[in-house]
Amino acid sequence: MVRKRLDDSHCAVARALNEVGDWWSLMIVLQAMYGVRRFSDFQQALGIAKNILCDRLARLVEHQVLAKVAVGEQGSRHEYRLTPKGRDLFTVVVALRQWSDRWHPDSRSPGMHDRAEGQPLQELYVSSSDGRRLDVRDVILQPADARKDTA
Amino acid sequence: MVRKRLDDSHCAVARALNEVGDWWSLMIVLQAMYGVRRFSDFQQALGIAKNILCDRLARLVEHQVLAKVAVGEQGSRHEYRLTPKGRDLFTVVVALRQWSDRWHPDSRSPGMHDRAEGQPLQELYVSSSDGRRLDVRDVILQPADARKDTA
Repeated sequence: MVRKRLDDSHCAVARALNEVGDWWSLMIVLQAMYGVRRFSDFQQALGIAKNILCDRLARLVEHQVLAKVAVGEQGSRHEYRLTPKGRDLFTVVVALRQWSDRWHPDSRSPGMHDRAEGQPLQELYVSSSDGRRLDVRDVILQPADARKDTA
Repeated sequence: MVRKRLDDSHCAVARALNEVGDWWSLMIVLQAMYGVRRFSDFQQALGIAKNILCDRLARLVEHQVLAKVAVGEQGSRHEYRLTPKGRDLFTVVVALRQWSDRWHPDSRSPGMHDRAEGQPLQELYVSSSDGRRLDVRDVILQPADARKDTA
């Protein structure tokens, strides 16, 4: 696959996208965050072909985003559960969701609420070490190639 | 394409992924954040086939993430520039990059620094309206299907 080209680059975004950047992969992670654990439930929730689901689950297990856990009598069934690394994608999911809601205000998604207080979450934004809100133009981004110049 | 299945769903994450969830699309957005604007420069930076780059740029323009702008004498050349919607993907890019760095500490990417102060950016995290740091398990997520029950 051509997308393998950047696999071993030092670009963190490329590496992250290689692990979860496939459209279905992040939808599977999202369903797992909703509480889905079984193959058949993922299939039903996403309307995804069995072979694609199988492949994407295997990739997510390989990248330790999901863990495949034997359950049932004598491990007769399997469940797919988010690992700490998988749960940590929550920030990415919230960032995507808030971005989508900001730019499609006519079809805002049902809210995400703090379980303890029932209040909506705060908007995520990038900020400086002293708390100023930063735009992409306020930040010096160094592409992977810049590493050799800054070492 | 099978991924079109969830296009018109009310799921904000699905909608966002439909617009930028393709692996190459977000890499193109990242390059644009680095300052790349020309077709040939995107091609060189990403090592991407012309037809794929052409297709992805067209999709990003269609979704108003990039704008195609005529430049040069009498508009003889074109540049692709991030729109406000495209620049707003910065939060997603930073979330992906920080996630990748947390889980691959042996190959952390070169830092992103605040242009004004030269300091590293703060870690993004999801927080409640009163500022508590929240994990995915602290949040009530409602899938798109839940809309009808909450209306």
